[in-house]
Amino acid sequence: MADLPKTVDIFEEGPREGFQIEPGPIPTADKIALIEALSETGLHHIQICSFVNPRLVPGWADAEAVAGGFTPRQGVEYAALWFNENGLNRALAFRERLSMVGSISLAASNAFTLKNLNRDHQANLEAMRKQTAAHLRAGIPVTRVGVMAAFGCNYQGDITPEQIVSTVADGLAIAAEQDARITDVTLADTMGWATPIRIERGVGAVRERWPELRIGLHLHDTRGLAVANAHAGLRLGVQRFDATVGGLGGCPFAGQKGAAGNICTEELVLLCEEMGIGTGIDLDALIEVGRLAERIVGHQLPSELLRANSLDAFRRKAA
Amino acid sequence: MADLPKTVDIFEEGPREGFQIEPGPIPTADKIALIEALSETGLHHIQICSFVNPRLVPGWADAEAVAGGFTPRQGVEYAALWFNENGLNRALAFRERLSMVGSISLAASNAFTLKNLNRDHQANLEAMRKQTAAHLRAGIPVTRVGVMAAFGCNYQGDITPEQIVSTVADGLAIAAEQDARITDVTLADTMGWATPIRIERGVGAVRERWPELRIGLHLHDTRGLAVANAHAGLRLGVQRFDATVGGLGGCPFAGQKGAAGNICTEELVLLCEEMGIGTGIDLDALIEVGRLAERIVGHQLPSELLRANSLDAFRRKAA
Repeated sequence: MADLPKTVDIFEEGPREGFQIEPGPIPTADKIALIEALSETGLHHIQICSFVNPRLVPGWADAEAVAGGFTPRQGVEYAALWFNENGLNRALAFRERLSMVGSISLAASNAFTLKNLNRDHQANLEAMRKQTAAHLRAGIPVTRVGVMAAFGCNYQGDITPEQIVSTVADGLAIAAEQDARITDVTLADTMGWATPIRIERGVGAVRERWPELRIGLHLHDTRGLAVANAHAGLRLGVQRFDATVGGLGGCPFAGQKGAAGNICTEELVLLCEEMGIGTGIDLDALIEVGRLAERIVGHQLPSELLRANSLDAFRRKAA
Repeated sequence: MADLPKTVDIFEEGPREGFQIEPGPIPTADKIALIEALSETGLHHIQICSFVNPRLVPGWADAEAVAGGFTPRQGVEYAALWFNENGLNRALAFRERLSMVGSISLAASNAFTLKNLNRDHQANLEAMRKQTAAHLRAGIPVTRVGVMAAFGCNYQGDITPEQIVSTVADGLAIAAEQDARITDVTLADTMGWATPIRIERGVGAVRERWPELRIGLHLHDTRGLAVANAHAGLRLGVQRFDATVGGLGGCPFAGQKGAAGNICTEELVLLCEEMGIGTGIDLDALIEVGRLAERIVGHQLPSELLRANSLDAFRRKAA
């Protein structure tokens, strides 16, 4: 039997991921209702919005209204996303309500960086240097290196563990230049290329080089393998996972319009709890929130579990 | 690294599982078109129809027309399903075209047997005795014991590895009474209760007791864990899997109307091929057949991979 962790930390990103990709305008009140419902499930980390350019991402034109409008629940950390100094400054207006932590966000694929950010890896390193400095000036700690396209890339193909390690090293070098202390690395399967073996090799390579860093996984279910990949991570002792309720979100990248988004939070919770790994989350409550999310977006979400029910629901009936 | 097999045998059950659960009548010609398209993908085993009571399963009123109507491809084994002597006799009319092998089909849950077959486990054993005799009289070998609800049951709750072992032993005893030589056991997660740990424990218990038997897995994706469960099976060296293209089929059991059906063949093929396990199947061709299946049933199927594409398709573009 593998060395499964006793507990995991799940970072719910459904509100942020889900509402940026939906075509229709989602009312601010619905976004807030989802955030507040998620807050009641036992989740400790919820990413609530994205401070991005409203012309590029109209779904988050109301980021300020959401960040200022929801009622925080004690014990829950609320986070937001931003990609540049302008976004950071908008987020700082809510620093009393938000958990403000900076990341150095890179991609293991140069081709992805070019397509996604319109700059190459070197230029992205320079941008991250400036962004790290801006965070530190504002008193925001920079503690995480994120690696997108860590397990493969629609534009570049396969990514090796060596490329992951080299990308993490680039991020750590930026942090070191500015005396930022990195504690966490997140490996993101941005376009759904991971398999259990790639997870084992990628996580293994990073851990071997930097055993002191906590490794998190951000998994997409583009090809149906997200839960298997999460299980591979759990077997390696990974304790931090991003996820979205119902599988909210999607994949905006090449040739995958309509493809599934992130791993579903409720399927990840089921996997963990049924194997004795504590999540702190009430699965039945979370499934109800997934159904609320489906009503808000007005269509079925990818989660299979929303069509079934938790096993505990059947155990109670069978008993 | 686990002891992954070098190759696996995938038993495609999409036509049989899929068309029995769809509400609308599917034209016989469409069923045949799907079977013939599947035959071109490299699959070696395709279950094409079910010889069941047309009043109970109107979707298979045309079983004879399908079994007699498709053009077999050399090297592909075509199978059918039946549950009693009447069904067996109908299938025997096609013994030149069908691979005729008998199973002793039991369930690890007595409550499931009662609900599903309207008889208890003891009465089911008696029915299987008679059915085994009927097979042998007709010259049909009985080589497999199937265990439904092997990993849990909506009506009874959890199922222990000991209950699986005891059910297999009951099946083997029937075979032994009649000198039938069992080579295969299939453990079916009929209602989607399996987790990777339950797979490890259930498969492990059967293998420990009967190391000479080949173990197959029939997995349902009711709660999104099917691929993770298949991976757990692969790690134990399991080489036989049932699957349905696109995830055709569904779960007709308590409280799970609309729930997902079997593990998707194409996601299983992706998992295997990307980890170096040969399936003999052309994944891009299979994905196209999945899309054909969606056009035939007139709605989206659960497979996420149908919305994306194989990784090889992106590798070719990236190269």
